[in-house]
Amino acid sequence: RKTHRIAVLPGDGIGKETVPEGLRVLDAAARRFGFDLELSHFDWSCETYAQTGKMMPEDGLDQLAKSDSVFLGAVGWPGVPDHISLWGLLIPIRRGFDQYISLRPCKLMPGARTPLADRTPADIDFYVVRENTEGEYSSTGGKMFPGTEREFVTQDSVFTRVGVDRVLKYAFELAMTRPRRKLTSATKSNGITFTMPYWDERFAEMAKNYPGVTTDQFHIDILCAHFVQHPDWFDVVVGSNLFGDILSDLGPAVAGSIGIAPSANINPEKKFPSMFEPVHGSAPDIAGKWICNPIGQIWSGAMMLEHLGEKAAADCIVKAIETLLAEGGPRTRDMGGNAGTVDVGKALAEAV
Amino acid sequence: RKTHRIAVLPGDGIGKETVPEGLRVLDAAARRFGFDLELSHFDWSCETYAQTGKMMPEDGLDQLAKSDSVFLGAVGWPGVPDHISLWGLLIPIRRGFDQYISLRPCKLMPGARTPLADRTPADIDFYVVRENTEGEYSSTGGKMFPGTEREFVTQDSVFTRVGVDRVLKYAFELAMTRPRRKLTSATKSNGITFTMPYWDERFAEMAKNYPGVTTDQFHIDILCAHFVQHPDWFDVVVGSNLFGDILSDLGPAVAGSIGIAPSANINPEKKFPSMFEPVHGSAPDIAGKWICNPIGQIWSGAMMLEHLGEKAAADCIVKAIETLLAEGGPRTRDMGGNAGTVDVGKALAEAV
Ligand SMILES: CC(C)[C@H](C(=O)O)[C@@H](O)C(=O)O
Ligand SMILES: CC(C)[C@H](C(=O)O)[C@@H](O)C(=O)O
Repeated sequence: RKTHRIAVLPGDGIGKETVPEGLRVLDAAARRFGFDLELSHFDWSCETYAQTGKMMPEDGLDQLAKSDSVFLGAVGWPGVPDHISLWGLLIPIRRGFDQYISLRPCKLMPGARTPLADRTPADIDFYVVRENTEGEYSSTGGKMFPGTEREFVTQDSVFTRVGVDRVLKYAFELAMTRPRRKLTSATKSNGITFTMPYWDERFAEMAKNYPGVTTDQFHIDILCAHFVQHPDWFDVVVGSNLFGDILSDLGPAVAGSIGIAPSANINPEKKFPSMFEPVHGSAPDIAGKWICNPIGQIWSGAMMLEHLGEKAAADCIVKAIETLLAEGGPRTRDMGGNAGTVDVGKALAEAV
Repeated sequence: RKTHRIAVLPGDGIGKETVPEGLRVLDAAARRFGFDLELSHFDWSCETYAQTGKMMPEDGLDQLAKSDSVFLGAVGWPGVPDHISLWGLLIPIRRGFDQYISLRPCKLMPGARTPLADRTPADIDFYVVRENTEGEYSSTGGKMFPGTEREFVTQDSVFTRVGVDRVLKYAFELAMTRPRRKLTSATKSNGITFTMPYWDERFAEMAKNYPGVTTDQFHIDILCAHFVQHPDWFDVVVGSNLFGDILSDLGPAVAGSIGIAPSANINPEKKFPSMFEPVHGSAPDIAGKWICNPIGQIWSGAMMLEHLGEKAAADCIVKAIETLLAEGGPRTRDMGGNAGTVDVGKALAEAV
């Protein structure tokens, strides 16, 4: 009997409401599929910051490192600027644990409402693979001539061979597991003429190792347009930190799942824990009312189980979500129902 | 009687088919509204490159500088890489003539098909204002440790006070002319932590001069999602070179107008000619068949007339396009009809 050690980090706002429901469903899956979960709870959040001046303790990463995975709710609260809340908790975990893959499914769930006309679940079912440690999110750059008319600010985009190759490799490997075996690369080499041609060059090089994968590439501007016009074209899409960020919000938006989409921040070598979190934020406007939708959190739990080698359990949770949505199970307000957060969590735990 | 000097540059592919129709309609407008057009024709294109090794002559910009505006078709042809075709013609004109504004309307035209469900022309009618000379499209950066495992490539994003302030000013001024007086800023200051906070800072500063304009801002990832989910939220949207590029393809895509959308590259001070071109490219797959849709070119002509101070004529052309689309006038294949390029041009010239 396997034991998975999970660091539980609800964070701020509705994270405190969705995480318990995520755990409820994980627990049901553990019982059904015969594994154990050993939970450690961490209340690090913007409240911690208010009390201690830090989002997490100095040795925060060391504490989390004892777990196999981090199960995160949401980070951020009005009054605490992003460069403190995100850069004090979320980003240090991604970087400190070298979670160089961000993976997000874009999937039109049966019974969900997409903003697109005439699209069915068969049309929208792809993954966005995002580089998660370098690229446009760099820490080099600065300001010159401050306060004058000549003032300017620069920021480097940094693309390393190691960083680019490993995310491309992951994306090709993922494409190999999919029925269509198709990989699309997001570029902008016609406008951004140093880093993007390099990305294209490494993509072409890596493609040689995967003759079984069909590839194409689009500039990010028209690629965003294609997401709206032809979401059925895509199977796996790989992009830099910024392009992946954009595409992994746009993808769930076209699929009508932005409120319920999960995401994984993965260290594929399992040298460090990976982290699983819903795409939605802490939603201060509805926090404390227990009306938020826990599906993104629960789906993130499924991604976590898949990463931990519990594929059957993961598939079972996703199936339960699909069935609940298709068959008119309890729905929260954002999906046109009036169920509470806990109702949805209980229904899914039961289904599992 | 006013005379406007126009440099006509059909360029490649379907540009050679759409530009004559654009001129046909411009000519009709000139007769009706009482002004003259003095045309100079330039055949610079990928063919020029094949013959001379250059996309345009050394003194190309000087030749164009004698005109008030440049009326461009499309640039690019298979076999000629972008860094030659675009960087040998399109980009030098934008930069050489300090066309620091790229302006693109995102408008759901009556009778056009949007990929979105349940949207009407009243829902989608906004402008994207894009910075067009600096930002992420920089010319500084490079490669280190080439050919080794340590290889990396950098590219600077460069945001100058002058460059940022002038595009923000233009966007605020444009918002002042619109009934809703609303301006949205595209940012990513939670991830790109040098340049984007600077953009936000200048935006907040500029906003003080325009208390009559309602402002908001979104990170580019969720902003792209909102374009799909809530296109009705937007009135004028301003973004950096890259963010503006993405939004000004995504906007026409959600409006179902990407095949017919116009764009303007503007030097607001009129120190240099501005340039007007459709958003679509040279479309090698249908070039030479005279079946392409000339509406993007014709609409670009309307934007040109507006820039030249002929607002009544510009409005008349846009109205003619709307009427043709709404009332089932001739349509090319991309819009579900079987009219030729010339049929549509003639119908619009007649309507004007
Ligand atoms: C062709 C390319 C360099 C260009 C750009 O990115 O500026 C195009 O996408 C555009 O938007 O006009
Ligand atoms: C919060 C922010 C820094 C983050 C990102 O851009 O990485 C978010 O948008 C995401 O995609 O997880």
